Amino acid sequence: MPMVTGVTRERVSVGVAGATGYAGQELVRLLARHPHVRLVAAMASSAGSPQRPLPALARVWDDDVVPLDLARLSSETEAVFLALPEDASADVVPALLERGRRVFDLSGAYRLRDNEQRTHWYPKASTLPDGSVYGLTETARPALPSARLVACPGCYPTPALLALQPLRAAGLVRGDTVIDAKSGISGAGKTPTERTHFSECHGSVSAYGVFAHRHGAEIEQELGCRVTFVPHLVPLDRGILETIYVGLAPHADATAIAAAYERAYGAAPFVRLTGDALPTIRHVAGTNFCDIGWKVDEAGGRLVLVACIDNLLKGAAGQAVQNFNVAFGFDERAGLWA
Amino acid sequence: MPMVTGVTRERVSVGVAGATGYAGQELVRLLARHPHVRLVAAMASSAGSPQRPLPALARVWDDDVVPLDLARLSSETEAVFLALPEDASADVVPALLERGRRVFDLSGAYRLRDNEQRTHWYPKASTLPDGSVYGLTETARPALPSARLVACPGCYPTPALLALQPLRAAGLVRGDTVIDAKSGISGAGKTPTERTHFSECHGSVSAYGVFAHRHGAEIEQELGCRVTFVPHLVPLDRGILETIYVGLAPHADATAIAAAYERAYGAAPFVRLTGDALPTIRHVAGTNFCDIGWKVDEAGGRLVLVACIDNLLKGAAGQAVQNFNVAFGFDERAGLWA
Amino acid sequence: MPMVTGVTRERVSVGVAGATGYAGQELVRLLARHPHVRLVAAMASSAGSPQRPLPALARVWDDDVVPLDLARLSSETEAVFLALPEDASADVVPALLERGRRVFDLSGAYRLRDNEQRTHWYPKASTLPDGSVYGLTETARPALPSARLVACPGCYPTPALLALQPLRAAGLVRGDTVIDAKSGISGAGKTPTERTHFSECHGSVSAYGVFAHRHGAEIEQELGCRVTFVPHLVPLDRGILETIYVGLAPHADATAIAAAYERAYGAAPFVRLTGDALPTIRHVAGTNFCDIGWKVDEAGGRLVLVACIDNLLKGAAGQAVQNFNVAFGFDERAGLWA
Amino acid sequence: MPMVTGVTRERVSVGVAGATGYAGQELVRLLARHPHVRLVAAMASSAGSPQRPLPALARVWDDDVVPLDLARLSSETEAVFLALPEDASADVVPALLERGRRVFDLSGAYRLRDNEQRTHWYPKASTLPDGSVYGLTETARPALPSARLVACPGCYPTPALLALQPLRAAGLVRGDTVIDAKSGISGAGKTPTERTHFSECHGSVSAYGVFAHRHGAEIEQELGCRVTFVPHLVPLDRGILETIYVGLAPHADATAIAAAYERAYGAAPFVRLTGDALPTIRHVAGTNFCDIGWKVDEAGGRLVLVACIDNLLKGAAGQAVQNFNVAFGFDERAGLWA
Repeated sequence: MPMVTGVTRERVSVGVAGATGYAGQELVRLLARHPHVRLVAAMASSAGSPQRPLPALARVWDDDVVPLDLARLSSETEAVFLALPEDASADVVPALLERGRRVFDLSGAYRLRDNEQRTHWYPKASTLPDGSVYGLTETARPALPSARLVACPGCYPTPALLALQPLRAAGLVRGDTVIDAKSGISGAGKTPTERTHFSECHGSVSAYGVFAHRHGAEIEQELGCRVTFVPHLVPLDRGILETIYVGLAPHADATAIAAAYERAYGAAPFVRLTGDALPTIRHVAGTNFCDIGWKVDEAGGRLVLVACIDNLLKGAAGQAVQNFNVAFGFDERAGLWA
Repeated sequence: MPMVTGVTRERVSVGVAGATGYAGQELVRLLARHPHVRLVAAMASSAGSPQRPLPALARVWDDDVVPLDLARLSSETEAVFLALPEDASADVVPALLERGRRVFDLSGAYRLRDNEQRTHWYPKASTLPDGSVYGLTETARPALPSARLVACPGCYPTPALLALQPLRAAGLVRGDTVIDAKSGISGAGKTPTERTHFSECHGSVSAYGVFAHRHGAEIEQELGCRVTFVPHLVPLDRGILETIYVGLAPHADATAIAAAYERAYGAAPFVRLTGDALPTIRHVAGTNFCDIGWKVDEAGGRLVLVACIDNLLKGAAGQAVQNFNVAFGFDERAGLWA
Repeated sequence: MPMVTGVTRERVSVGVAGATGYAGQELVRLLARHPHVRLVAAMASSAGSPQRPLPALARVWDDDVVPLDLARLSSETEAVFLALPEDASADVVPALLERGRRVFDLSGAYRLRDNEQRTHWYPKASTLPDGSVYGLTETARPALPSARLVACPGCYPTPALLALQPLRAAGLVRGDTVIDAKSGISGAGKTPTERTHFSECHGSVSAYGVFAHRHGAEIEQELGCRVTFVPHLVPLDRGILETIYVGLAPHADATAIAAAYERAYGAAPFVRLTGDALPTIRHVAGTNFCDIGWKVDEAGGRLVLVACIDNLLKGAAGQAVQNFNVAFGFDERAGLWA
Repeated sequence: MPMVTGVTRERVSVGVAGATGYAGQELVRLLARHPHVRLVAAMASSAGSPQRPLPALARVWDDDVVPLDLARLSSETEAVFLALPEDASADVVPALLERGRRVFDLSGAYRLRDNEQRTHWYPKASTLPDGSVYGLTETARPALPSARLVACPGCYPTPALLALQPLRAAGLVRGDTVIDAKSGISGAGKTPTERTHFSECHGSVSAYGVFAHRHGAEIEQELGCRVTFVPHLVPLDRGILETIYVGLAPHADATAIAAAYERAYGAAPFVRLTGDALPTIRHVAGTNFCDIGWKVDEAGGRLVLVACIDNLLKGAAGQAVQNFNVAFGFDERAGLWA
């Protein structure tokens, strides 16, 4: 794959499949105004879907949302963003790759490399395609330009991995890892259910998926260790904040922690280090930033990390576009900055 | 119907049909601890419904919710509270009345007296039963002891009527009446829909049912004049606040307004007059109160009324129990006060 | 004032005063990434203010917020955006104009042209400067290129005027005008008060300022008629939705209403007409759009308009930037679109 | 202290000091309608405080809130409830005890028995009074009838201790204990601050007090082991949900866990065990219940507990009244049930 730059080529033709869900709408919003993108079509999640307008995107993307059309994606686009249910993604990805499209998949279908794990959680994703990259942009940068399929990370793994990987790589933490995640309700998708009914969520907090959430498997794959991961729904729309409890390695201290983060993210445009001023969802909602703060108890050998993102941007559509930018050689911030 | 009192008889046997909805659960919560009630059964909305537990009511009402059973309601209860969909109510009410039960109906089925109006909005409610009373407690008190069917008012009409009736009766207002209502989402019921999906409601406000809401017909029936009524969903769970715009009659002034309200509600246990300190939902949520405040522009001939209630209590289950208390001769506050 | 274009000149040097409030932060966020702006300084609201960082804007604007410095604004900028308290604005505006700066004032100080009205609501704004324009962009476009001072409209007047002016201009409405406004809490500013304390607002709605809100005077000035305007706080952060009640003129009908709006806003980049699919805050939050929908009761001679905006964007910082774009000859959408 | 019962004596004369805060208002609301209480006075937090009405309590408690008056509390009441700032409590408690009043203190002043710990967190509480009891009702029952001072537990310790104590007593858990707490904003009190400003909290979650919250010391005192406790503010008004991570002791399993809880709380009127159907805030808000659920990973040796309460009831005013009921020999549910 020859590197292309924003200078040498103006716009890449792209398509979006699954444009009516929350992440899909964010993709359309971002791509319709991306300086290096020509958005060819916003498609529904299936061939039979009736066309639906997206009133929230009037004046931004006024075209119809058309039924899913693999032939058209293959013939008219160079890159395809998929915001489909995982089973649909598992179906569509091989076909698109075969026809030479580069695919940015927001579903979990091809995130897990171990076949047993993957088919346990995503039964239809039987074979991991060649040229797959797990697309946590900050660590995937070298691999993205040649990637054929970018499996964009889940919303919960994104802040957990960004917070933990630099410390684990530097050998600064040890012992059990507890990840207590608080997520806005948009993470549960656009389909009305009892769990996401306003009156059930408002004024409430609930834990779910304890010891049984596929994002736990994804985090464990990338970290290479066991984690205890408990997601919660909190009464807000967009954003995830994770509080992470780990032990401090014997030689580790606050200075080493800060240095490890600075090394990892000093030049990263979308990771902001807040030090011991802990971050809040409010400052990342509506942005592609991941904010990370931490508190060190040197005497007690404990460390608490707090990381947060907008689940639909850095946790979904934003990170996919960030991956696209790196993959195609554009400024990593293109279309995400303003 | 001989008057009975809290002294002479201890407990009335009652049943609830439609116990799993939001208003139904409130009924069970109130009646299970009502000092003059023996709650015989909490029933689902239909005969075929599977039994469901009500986890929110553990330790308050631990019995199963049983399928709807008219025979049992007729043989084991004296009074029945219905929190059913309007069509189900329209079916069930005549059967229960025929068997001699006193019925407190929370649905709209039998609120409209005009046959054309009623069958327009509630097609299944073809015949208005004898002994029906429109149960806005504060005005229905004299009629309740002999009522067979109490059609409890809708959530939107309740504050509008409590605020407007004393002024209209005293001839203090004139001209157009605009009622702008803001309702919490629980008013839309327990069934998940796109409209009540958390992410669609959070951070948003929307108007609906403009010129086409059956509660407008109900308000117009009781006031005897045209109103322009627009309901809105606001992002909270429980509560309605209505802002009402009317013209001041030539001779009317702030003193006369206050006097009319004081006459109407000075002795009403559940109407609180806040004068020109306008009321807020926060102070009525979780209570059976209706708070009413007002601002008078004497020079401009204008009047703004603000009235609010908890839609599930004074707007539904609470007012039904209040009606029951008056109908059976108990203290109006029994079971509603603590 | 010679017209300048995005082609002939690249960037205008601008300063922001009052950068720490909610509207001020939005200005910094927008201007720091505006393609035709060089943001020289983000200043506090007063000379003595200590410098404060803006953690929410890390990576967007990392400079300190410096104390207010009129000399520097005069010497280093061409245009100044003021997000100051009204009294501070009343002080600062004449000084900046005298030194030749073009001023975009977000406060109310110089919105009212009538001296008596203006000094009633804004006592310090004794003299209306020459070259002042009331900056509702959609109607002010012709006047903006030569404006010295642009008094940007209040958050409440913006949707009311955009919804009502085309209909009044076309003679399609008559009779009383009632404007019932529901505003998110950010409209009350950043200073903690009992009214804006989370626990007082959550789950509640409250009316305030009845017959006594200066935005009522502003709306009446622009419409040239009396309005009954009642603002409410609703439990959300950003956004205003206004429900407007007017009478239909004898010859007016749904077709004429739609045509009047289409004429007024068919080419306006930031007004979206939703027809009888009424708009909601959710679709405008985070954008500079004003969405307008309407319902016509031809038989009853009534009209209900619903208009909504993001109060910090189209109701404050966004409209100020939009005015700047028109004033300096840039694309009206520059810096506001992505 | 002779046991008294609801049969032999009708009403205990009580006073409330600190009646205008959120917990204080709940006390007034509960005590004004308590069947065995005569509420003598609702007092402010200091002698100089101006009298303020409590509009939310109209028709429930219509008396003025009077300035704090120790003499009157001593002469006219038998029991006093204190909802004062901790320093004020530290001052007032010894004086009231000396004059023979029984005191139910909602502040933290006298919760910590270790002098060093107590004076570290509550410097004014220099001496722990004789006859003090840490009033977690479920474990304090035997001690309450003879208690002079009941130090009612903090809102955060209450669910943590109720969830952990039975398991620790049975030797079913081991290893580190992590308590991740999510609290509604009312827990931060009634004084407006930047942290509790609506726009700062809405749509956000934030951690605070990491390794430095006095409730951590309180939990450690009662459990006798180190805990890692991190509180968070979540955007709701009332309620706390705690997710607790512990290791499973070698012999422990799901059956043993359930049995330990059943033994501890089978007869407790205000603890509800939800098993592996995890509890949510929604079901406890507005009640005095503590709901506890759990998930066991037997193979992995891990246990996740979830416990939740209404912070102003079981976490403050409700538990104080529950303690009062036990202390005076009334039904534990009196005044809390309906």
